[in-house]
Amino acid sequence: MRLPFDTSDTLLARAAWSRIAEPGEESAGAAVASLGPGEALDWLCHAVENPHALPPHVRARVEGWATRLPGLDSRRELEVLARLGGYTILPGEDGWPAPLDDLGPASPFLLWVRSDHAIPLEWPPGGAVSIVGSRASTRYGETLAAELALGLAEDGVAVVSGGAYGIDAAAHRGALAANGAPTVAVLAGGVDRLYPAGNEELFRRIIAMGAVIAEAAPGSSPGRHRFLARNRLIAALTSGTIVVEAGLRSGAISTANHAGRLLRPLGAVPGPVTSAASAGCHHLLREAQATCVTSVAEARELIAPLGQVPVQEPLLGTGLLDGLAEDQSRVLDALPVRATAEIDSIARTAGLSPAEVRSALGLLELTGRVRRSGNRWARVAS
Amino acid sequence: MRLPFDTSDTLLARAAWSRIAEPGEESAGAAVASLGPGEALDWLCHAVENPHALPPHVRARVEGWATRLPGLDSRRELEVLARLGGYTILPGEDGWPAPLDDLGPASPFLLWVRSDHAIPLEWPPGGAVSIVGSRASTRYGETLAAELALGLAEDGVAVVSGGAYGIDAAAHRGALAANGAPTVAVLAGGVDRLYPAGNEELFRRIIAMGAVIAEAAPGSSPGRHRFLARNRLIAALTSGTIVVEAGLRSGAISTANHAGRLLRPLGAVPGPVTSAASAGCHHLLREAQATCVTSVAEARELIAPLGQVPVQEPLLGTGLLDGLAEDQSRVLDALPVRATAEIDSIARTAGLSPAEVRSALGLLELTGRVRRSGNRWARVAS
Repeated sequence: MRLPFDTSDTLLARAAWSRIAEPGEESAGAAVASLGPGEALDWLCHAVENPHALPPHVRARVEGWATRLPGLDSRRELEVLARLGGYTILPGEDGWPAPLDDLGPASPFLLWVRSDHAIPLEWPPGGAVSIVGSRASTRYGETLAAELALGLAEDGVAVVSGGAYGIDAAAHRGALAANGAPTVAVLAGGVDRLYPAGNEELFRRIIAMGAVIAEAAPGSSPGRHRFLARNRLIAALTSGTIVVEAGLRSGAISTANHAGRLLRPLGAVPGPVTSAASAGCHHLLREAQATCVTSVAEARELIAPLGQVPVQEPLLGTGLLDGLAEDQSRVLDALPVRATAEIDSIARTAGLSPAEVRSALGLLELTGRVRRSGNRWARVAS
Repeated sequence: MRLPFDTSDTLLARAAWSRIAEPGEESAGAAVASLGPGEALDWLCHAVENPHALPPHVRARVEGWATRLPGLDSRRELEVLARLGGYTILPGEDGWPAPLDDLGPASPFLLWVRSDHAIPLEWPPGGAVSIVGSRASTRYGETLAAELALGLAEDGVAVVSGGAYGIDAAAHRGALAANGAPTVAVLAGGVDRLYPAGNEELFRRIIAMGAVIAEAAPGSSPGRHRFLARNRLIAALTSGTIVVEAGLRSGAISTANHAGRLLRPLGAVPGPVTSAASAGCHHLLREAQATCVTSVAEARELIAPLGQVPVQEPLLGTGLLDGLAEDQSRVLDALPVRATAEIDSIARTAGLSPAEVRSALGLLELTGRVRRSGNRWARVAS
C-alpha cells in the first residue's frame, strides 16, 4: 500500500510513527533506529501486503501497526499543530532534550510542542526537575509541591510535571508564580486535547510561559496505559524526580520507578504517617532508596551534578552540651547554679583532676560561660 | 589509701567503679577489664599516693578518679538500693544483657535495677526495641510512639526508652498499656532519683511492670553529659532504635548515632516537613540511612533477625492499569464506554493485530472485564 505523503520526509515519517506505534513501543523504535523512519514506513507498507513471509511475532506487530495506516495523513496532523501555534522537535534538532536518548528504542519519535516561545527543551543551566504526585492530594502536599516548584524555578530550574489535578497542577502553578525557568507539562494524549479539561486555564498559562508537550500525535486519546508510558518521559527529561504525595497505587510511583531505572536521582517528600496520600512516598523512602526531601535546598542538592553537591554540615546530636568538649561539659555541670565553688570541690563533683578542671575553666571563661571571683568560680547565666 | 570495704568483693568493687568513673569512661573500663575490678581499685589507691611515678595522662585520670574516693562507701549505696527494693546485675550474671558487651571498655561496670520482678534483661524471645525522641514532642509524635510501643509490646518485644517527658514517656505508656513484654527506662543518674520528677508516677508503674535501670551508682546526679552517655546504653541494649520525633539538636540524634556505630538497625518515623519536631527524623532518613518506619509491622521488620524479615510485596505502581498486561490494557482502553465494538475497530484503536485483540479479549472475558454479544464486545461496568 502507499501512504498519501512523501515517506522520505523525515518529519512526516516520524510524525507517522508517533501515530502508528504506541508510546514507548520498543519494536517500532528499533525498526526506525535501524532503517530510518521513512524506510521503516516503506517496509511496513510492504510487509502489510506480504504478511505470510513474516515470523509470527513480527507479523503480529505489523498487523497491529497496520490497523492505524488507513486514513493516516501526518500532513494533516502537522497542520492541526500549526493552527494551534505549535511546532515539532525531532531528535538531534536544536532544542531536542538529549536526556531522552537514554530511553534507547523507547525514545519518542519526535516531540509535539505547544508553546508561545521556541522553548529550549535542552534545559537552562539550572537543569530540570520532575515534581509529581497524586491527583488525590491534600492541602499539605499541594502547598509543598508549589513551594518546591517556586523555589527551584526561581533558581533557574525548569519544573516538569504531568498537568494532572492535585500535585502536578500545584507544581506547575508554583513554577509559574516564580517567573523564572519555564515549566513543562507532558501529556499522555495529543497536544490538541488539553487533558484534563478542568486544567485548561492552567494549560493556557503553561503554553504562554512554558510548554505543553507530547510524543503521541494530535488526535491521540489519553488512554490509561499512555499515562504510564508518558511517565517515563517525565522521568527521562529531568535530572531528578521528586514525589510529593502519592498513594500506594498512584501513577507517580511508576514515574519514580522509571527515574530509578534511568539512574536519575529520586526524592520523596515525607508526610504524616497517618496520611494515605503520603504512603507512596514513605514506600519509596523504604523500598526504593529515595532521598528524603523536605526543603528547596534539599531538592537542589538532589538534582545537583555530581561533585557540585553542597556539603551538608553534620549534626552534633549534642544539643544538650552545646558542642562543648567533654571535660568542659563536666565542669560546667559541676558548678552550682546559684553559688560559687572552689577548684577542689568542682574536681570532686566532675570526677576530673584539679589540673583538668583549671584547664576547662580557662576555656569556659574565654567563651564567657563562667567567671572567676577570687579563687571561686561561678556560672554565667545563659 | 584504704577503702572502708573489701575490694576483693566483686560486687562492691564494681559498684565503687560505677561511682568513681564517669559512665562510658573507657580508660576505667579498660583498667577493670585488664586487672579485675578489685585489683584495679587497689592499683588506684596506690597510684593516688604515688602520682609522680605515673605518665602525665594516667596521672590526670588518677587524680580525677581520686576526687571521688574520699567518703566512698559502696556498701552504703547497695543498702540504699536494697531499701528501694532494687538489685544489681553484674556482667555475666543471670539476667545480664549480653548485647551491652558490644560496648567493649565503655560497657557498664554493673546495672543498678529497680523492679518489682527479677526482670530478665536478657530479652524475651521477641527481643527489644528502643523508642526514643524529643521532650519537645507533638501530639502526633506521642500518639505514634505510644502506638508503636503498644503494638510491639503486645508482640512480646520489650520497649526501652529514657523516661524523659514527651516521646520517651509516650513510648513507656504505650508499652505499659499492652500488658505484654516489659518496658525499661534507662536513667542518666542514680535509680534513687527518678528523674524527671514529673514522671514519678510513670516510673512507679514502670518499676511495677518493668524496670528502671542505671549504670551510675545511687546518689549520682543526672548531669547533662550523663544523658549522652546513657544514650549509648539505650542503643546497645536493643535490636534496633526507632526515633519518633526529634528536633535537629535533640539528644535522640545521639542515641541514633550510637545505634549506627553499634551496627544496630536504625528507624525514623517521618512527619510533616513543616514540623520542627520531625526535622531530626528527616535528617536521619537523609544522612544516616535510617529506615522509614510508619507502622508496627515496619517496626517489627526493622528489628527482625536477619533471615526472618517478612517479605514485602513490591508495589506495581500501575494502579491505573489494575495490574493488567499491556495488551489487555490497550484493548480495554479501546472499548467504547457505552457501546459495543467489533474486533477490527478495537484493533485499530488499540494499535494491535486482530489476533492479539482476540487473545486479550479472551483473557479479559475470563476475568469478567468484558462480555461478548454476537461478534461485538463491550466493557463490563466495574
